[in-house]
Amino acid sequence: MQVAVVTFDGFNELDSFIASVVINRARPDGLTAFITTPTPVVTSMNGVEVVGQRSLDFVAEADVVLIGSGIRTRDVVADPGLLAALPLDPARQFIGAQCSGALVLATLGLVDSMPVCTDVTTRPYLEERGVMVLDEPFHSEGTIATAGGCLASLYLGAWAISRTIGEDVARTAVDYVAPVGEKRATVERVFAAIRTPVHALS
Amino acid sequence: MQVAVVTFDGFNELDSFIASVVINRARPDGLTAFITTPTPVVTSMNGVEVVGQRSLDFVAEADVVLIGSGIRTRDVVADPGLLAALPLDPARQFIGAQCSGALVLATLGLVDSMPVCTDVTTRPYLEERGVMVLDEPFHSEGTIATAGGCLASLYLGAWAISRTIGEDVARTAVDYVAPVGEKRATVERVFAAIRTPVHALS
Repeated sequence: MQVAVVTFDGFNELDSFIASVVINRARPDGLTAFITTPTPVVTSMNGVEVVGQRSLDFVAEADVVLIGSGIRTRDVVADPGLLAALPLDPARQFIGAQCSGALVLATLGLVDSMPVCTDVTTRPYLEERGVMVLDEPFHSEGTIATAGGCLASLYLGAWAISRTIGEDVARTAVDYVAPVGEKRATVERVFAAIRTPVHALS
Repeated sequence: MQVAVVTFDGFNELDSFIASVVINRARPDGLTAFITTPTPVVTSMNGVEVVGQRSLDFVAEADVVLIGSGIRTRDVVADPGLLAALPLDPARQFIGAQCSGALVLATLGLVDSMPVCTDVTTRPYLEERGVMVLDEPFHSEGTIATAGGCLASLYLGAWAISRTIGEDVARTAVDYVAPVGEKRATVERVFAAIRTPVHALS
């Protein structure tokens, strides 16, 4: 199974790379993440140029799509061409959004009936669209999840592994990336945060 | 002030990017991090190509040098040319290493009199050189610090800001990247870990 980590120009490196690295720990178990970009090269909010591993064409075939965050997400949601290149389908894909990525989900009509998590900067833009924002790092309903605060991208990655491969593999992946001496506590914290009620794909 | 985040081929994205992103939160206060690479482009352990922001020439002029980690660090320490391109000077620079980066510090003779933190894979290679490895995420003495476990790169970044700009700015940077709803707990955890005895630059 494959994960598209959608990464736009102006992206926050933490939001795309924490999720992709933890997911790629599950590669031997059958789940691989790819940095997926609208242009061959994207430049981060800190000026780092990254070569995309997949183009947006990959979004339609991915089993999981995670929308990254950055400083230009409001340009993304104002661009009909970019939005049309994100044919997300919650009936057959797991869909997650990190921080301002929730604005993309809201624009695509994917969080009309659920509250979301996001960062403090994005929060007012979601609230003015009538979306309820939680003071929590992670929330999922059905096949859709949102995370707020850069480091909560670990939770999004753990959720993606849990829902596709299984919680045991996800716990092993989080354990690997956790700080030495804090591995057990980190795993417990992550899985307490993501263990909200979820529903299997219909 | 400037930070070189030294990033080799085969690098772990978490190890370089968590430190660089949190440090760049302190850019308005005068500290900027740059992904610093031996070749114009480096490829991560997960196949992501990243364009370096600075060449290794930058290491000599940086105020802080953080050695990232990856799957090819044993090749790095077996390469006299690469080692010669890392003229680290603990008398005028803060020097940190993430996971296998500690192997670089050991090879350069920078941790002869101190224990280090590293990942479980690198641990035996350090112990066979007679370096004591701690079961902790972070340890610093004087101007040298080591961190173990990918996510402990947050501690290395926080330490770099604390030692150059100040702890208040470092706490604000960590607060920003922390998960929503867990910001205070994250800041407390990070600063409890890095508040080991330190000594000012002589």
